[in-house]
Parts: sequence; C-alpha cells; structure tokens
Amino acid sequence: MVENIPASTPRRRGPYSKSDGRRRDILAAATQVFGVNGYRAGSLKEIAGIVGMNPTSLLHYFPTKDALLQAVLDERDKVSDAVASAAAGDPTDPADVPRAFLRIAQNNQDVPGIIGLYTLLAAESATPGHPTREYFVARYQRVREQFRGVFARMEDADLLAPGVTAEYAAASTLGLWDGIQMQWMIDPDSIDVVAHLRRHLSMITVVEL
Amino acid sequence: MVENIPASTPRRRGPYSKSDGRRRDILAAATQVFGVNGYRAGSLKEIAGIVGMNPTSLLHYFPTKDALLQAVLDERDKVSDAVASAAAGDPTDPADVPRAFLRIAQNNQDVPGIIGLYTLLAAESATPGHPTREYFVARYQRVREQFRGVFARMEDADLLAPGVTAEYAAASTLGLWDGIQMQWMIDPDSIDVVAHLRRHLSMITVVEL
Repeated sequence: MVENIPASTPRRRGPYSKSDGRRRDILAAATQVFGVNGYRAGSLKEIAGIVGMNPTSLLHYFPTKDALLQAVLDERDKVSDAVASAAAGDPTDPADVPRAFLRIAQNNQDVPGIIGLYTLLAAESATPGHPTREYFVARYQRVREQFRGVFARMEDADLLAPGVTAEYAAASTLGLWDGIQMQWMIDPDSIDVVAHLRRHLSMITVVEL
Repeated sequence: MVENIPASTPRRRGPYSKSDGRRRDILAAATQVFGVNGYRAGSLKEIAGIVGMNPTSLLHYFPTKDALLQAVLDERDKVSDAVASAAAGDPTDPADVPRAFLRIAQNNQDVPGIIGLYTLLAAESATPGHPTREYFVARYQRVREQFRGVFARMEDADLLAPGVTAEYAAASTLGLWDGIQMQWMIDPDSIDVVAHLRRHLSMITVVEL
C-alpha cells in the first residue's frame, strides 16, 4: 500500500506493480485484438507484438489464450458496470433510463473493440468448443434480468407507451440493440446504432428523447 | 435432359450427374458444418468426412474453402428466396406479410444450421480478412431494402400501428430478428424466436397474429 505520495515524486515500482502494469497493457491489447478479430482469429502473437513481448513471455502472465480472453471479459464487465452506473445518472429516476441507454450505446460506438468484444464474441461463442459459451449464456440471462428490472420501474411510473409491457420493452430493446450493433460491425458507414436505439426507445416509452 | 422416366426404372447416371450429386452432398455437409462452427472453425476435413471423401478429393469440386463457403451461401440464397416466396403466400395482400415473416422464422428454427449460417457468419464476416464480408454488406443492403418495401406496402394499406412508419417497422424488425436469433443460438432453451417476432409484429402492425 503506497499512500500520499506527492505527484512529483518518481515512483519506484517493485516487481509486483511492474507486473501489474504489464498485465494491464496485455489486457488492453487483447481487448483490441479479440474485439476486432474474435477469439479464433485473434492471435497471441499479435497481442504480444502490440505490447512488445514475445508470445512465450505473455504466457507467463496469462497461461492460455482462453484464460486471457476470460480476463479481458471480466475486466470489461467491471468497466462496463462502472460506465453503465455513471451513464445511468440518477438511478432513482426511471425517466432517465432511455437516455442512459443512449449514453451507453454512444460510449460503445466510441471505444474501438467494445461492440466486437460482446457482439462478435457472443455469436462466436455459439460454436462448439468455444471457451466463453457459459460466460455468454450467463451474461445474457443477467442482462435480460437487468433490462426487465429497469423497464418494470418505467412501467410502474407510467412511462411506457400505451400497450407496451416491461417484458416486451426489455426483450425488444436488447434484441434490437444487438442486431443493430451486428449490422454496424459489418457496415459501419450505413448504420447509426444510437439513432436506431433512440427511435426505438421513443416508440416504446413516453419519454422525450 | 432425362424426361418421363417411370419411377420404377433405375436411373443410370453419367459422370456429369454423378458429379452433380456429389456437389449437392458436399454443399449439404458444408451448410451444416459452417452453420454450426462458422467459417474459421469449420474444417474441410470435417465436411469431407461427412460425405465420405478425403479433403483433397473435395478440392476437386470446390478449389478452396472460400469458394465452398460462397457456394453454400449462393445455394442457400436460392432456397431462402424460394421458401420466402412460398411462405409469403399471396404477395398481393400486404396483410399476409407478418404471418409470412413468422413462417420464415419457424422454418429457420426447424432447419439445423440455417440460423448459424446467416447470424454466425454475418458476425464473423466483420473480422478482418474474412472471405464473405462483401457478401454480407451487400446482403444486408438488399434485405433492408426488401423489408422497407414490404412494410411500405403495409403502410399504404393502413396496416401499421398508429405512429409506426415503414422505415421504423423495417429497421426494428430486421434488427430484433437478428438479435433474438443470436440469443437463441447461444441459449436455445431460453429463447423462442417465433414468439418474440410475433409479439413485435403484433405491436407494430394492426394485423391479428
């Protein structure tokens, strides 16, 4: 534990914190490579190249490609949760839910590799023997539950459009969001994810967007 | 051209029709393997194994893995168009459009590998150097256009729900359909594609489903 070090003091890193920095660099490179190439086509060699290591040294930090991918997803989930919380603004106000979704969608589109990391890897994870199948099954169950929760709060506050249930709002928003992100990955110049999502949320809620 | 052969007559196939049958067998096996594994993890060895050939002989029919995948997609597009036309029933009645979509969705869910062939390969095609990137860019442009066309006909016939435009109906239906199919691929026991699509079409149109 290092505390209260003035900003101007050069920090001398022990082997532990140097190793930590290395891990972070590797995770950042792997996020980019897996997010763009997917798991199967993403290579340890390319990841190692970005951080200026050889692949064998990289395996000192993450023993297998699977372990590295899982670490990337775990790390991203932490960041995503933080971004989602920050983007959600005042969580006691259900009227802010649609705008929070739009901020998250904008953030996803701005950070390279994020949409690929979830959309591309989710699709790829449906293939036999893929290391993150269970992760994505669990993730979708969790996200479906979260979406149902926030739209239920909107329903309780009479903020859904006439005839729209929380169940439909949740399933349609999650489905449409993923589908549009997939179209965006394939043809980014033709598709505006945020605009599509805004129009959908305008249709299913009574919140002005 | 062989015509009017009684059903009981054994057909003697010349080298050409035998080769044709071989091609069909290979395409069927490749549809299954690419639809379940995607392109990168789908192997020529596995495809050859299903039809009882060695991979080298298979390359006599399709010179590369890329050529074989393209042939699979071209073949499926022919079948899909035929199924879509048949499912569409009377194309002069725009009120039948939502039920036609549901029949296609049901057919997709019933034929193994079809959803994977489009959803999985579409996602995978967004990765660098994937052989079907251009195919999917063009395919999505064509499908978006088709969807806009059929929903425009529904709009003209006053069959869309109040406030729903043909543009929104097309984009939301295509996006949601793809997104739900992706969730289904990952966790088929939790997701019913047809039910999701039926609920969506019930929301955006005034047709009883």
